[in-house]
Amino acid sequence: MSGALRIGMDIGGSKTEAVALDEAGRVVATTRLHTTGGAAGVLDTASSAIAALARETGRATHEFAAVGIGIPGQIDRAAGVVKHAYNIGIDHLPLAARLAERTGLDISLDNDVTAAAIGAAHLMELRGTLAYLNLGTGLSAGLVVDGSPLRGAHGVTGEIGHLPVDPLGRPCPCGQRGCLETVASGSALRTFWPAGGDHPGRVLLSAVDAGDPDAAAAFGHLVRGAASCVRLLVLAMDPHTVVIGGGLRLLGPRLIDGIRATLDTWAADSPFLSELELSGRVQVLAADSPAAAVGAALAGAD
Amino acid sequence: MSGALRIGMDIGGSKTEAVALDEAGRVVATTRLHTTGGAAGVLDTASSAIAALARETGRATHEFAAVGIGIPGQIDRAAGVVKHAYNIGIDHLPLAARLAERTGLDISLDNDVTAAAIGAAHLMELRGTLAYLNLGTGLSAGLVVDGSPLRGAHGVTGEIGHLPVDPLGRPCPCGQRGCLETVASGSALRTFWPAGGDHPGRVLLSAVDAGDPDAAAAFGHLVRGAASCVRLLVLAMDPHTVVIGGGLRLLGPRLIDGIRATLDTWAADSPFLSELELSGRVQVLAADSPAAAVGAALAGAD
Repeated sequence: MSGALRIGMDIGGSKTEAVALDEAGRVVATTRLHTTGGAAGVLDTASSAIAALARETGRATHEFAAVGIGIPGQIDRAAGVVKHAYNIGIDHLPLAARLAERTGLDISLDNDVTAAAIGAAHLMELRGTLAYLNLGTGLSAGLVVDGSPLRGAHGVTGEIGHLPVDPLGRPCPCGQRGCLETVASGSALRTFWPAGGDHPGRVLLSAVDAGDPDAAAAFGHLVRGAASCVRLLVLAMDPHTVVIGGGLRLLGPRLIDGIRATLDTWAADSPFLSELELSGRVQVLAADSPAAAVGAALAGAD
Repeated sequence: MSGALRIGMDIGGSKTEAVALDEAGRVVATTRLHTTGGAAGVLDTASSAIAALARETGRATHEFAAVGIGIPGQIDRAAGVVKHAYNIGIDHLPLAARLAERTGLDISLDNDVTAAAIGAAHLMELRGTLAYLNLGTGLSAGLVVDGSPLRGAHGVTGEIGHLPVDPLGRPCPCGQRGCLETVASGSALRTFWPAGGDHPGRVLLSAVDAGDPDAAAAFGHLVRGAASCVRLLVLAMDPHTVVIGGGLRLLGPRLIDGIRATLDTWAADSPFLSELELSGRVQVLAADSPAAAVGAALAGAD
């Protein structure tokens, strides 16, 4: 292993994944850590991940070319600041500067969903326009056009979770009502099926399998909500591919097949939709894909 | 006037506007014609517009560098074919090849709303990302990123008119229910206020001025529908600017001020929306702007 290596890191609410990429964009080392919350905890976690990759690759820390970090919250890339990342206990942190002080490395930040979109395009070798649909605890999307992310004016590209789609729908924490996030997200799942414990999706699917009609109805809500997101992304941006990512994708073929079947049902009722080949554009991010960490490394190299 | 001139043309349901642009992208001649419908009629109209610009600029037809045409319907740019442009009586027409045979000029086609978005960015000198909201008989949008249009995979970028936003809303001709086009478009206006004759918007505003509460309610529906479109475009794509175009913009400050006030009201109820500066991103295309013709000329030169 020779040549410069860069690091990409995905700092999530419970775990942090970091990779080392070689100059050809191949993953040559991977590490996974528990995320410690709060400003000091996140800095410790990131430093530990870099140290682990140094051991793994036999390099000294200062030999890494750069570090790109994907992280939830509102990201000011130019300033290297992350704000409002409440699920990792950060209100405002100049993460790039602080981590650069500790490590001596160039650090850049990106929104975790944007990073995942960039990484998915790279790892899945997707050309043209890619819309990445993140069905996580929250709901948002990333857009990559010919390998480059569309970042937008205020860093909120793809905040489709807060588009109202039902005037009589549930109140959303954002202050509106009937937002897409209230029907298609991990938090929506917990509302539809409150008895789910730590793995609400698995518990819900077990209940569906056991023939519980309420569970089937709850799962149907979720599937239709996710299909609505795909329709939205296709009509607004006409991507070649819509990649389903986020924790809910781990529900597996039942979710994805349900999304495709729902899109086909809608197309059967609408000549307009049938021309758009909605279900044919849907792909799924692999369960173990390090897309966000890889994308963060690639975005950091820009 | 020296140097190469290119032509841009906006073929609409009732009128056709054509411009000649110099190499710096300045409009040096303009002509407006009644559009004759059907394949033969559209070819005649386009030929007449080119002849009129030749007279106006003192050039022979073959001296023009190229012709770009913005036209409604589904456009296959590579093949130079327009399909399903029903409001000008065209089901399928290889317009580029036919007009090239007649004139000897290079002809390229573009969707009229995409052309208008490109032209608006040029004429209004807008940098960054522009979402162009076409409030015409139908409803759609165009997206321009740093001067280049986002065309998408199937030529349907910006078909936001057929996004359902109310499960209990009106049936839409597309086969779905409660689509944005059923609340924010010229056809929506005619549904809300059927007694409008040839100028339904003006008749509606007169009735509002006369104190008719039903007219005020109908106008309010339209304003909220248009504001919903702006919110959608901002959340999905985070553009620096949303430009309101299309025939409904001719309703003037009442519509635009209404849209901005509605967005501000929503922001007051939602900390999330209030950070997005929705109303501050809204601008209006000038009533007499030749944006679609200018954009078609610029797109043709690509």
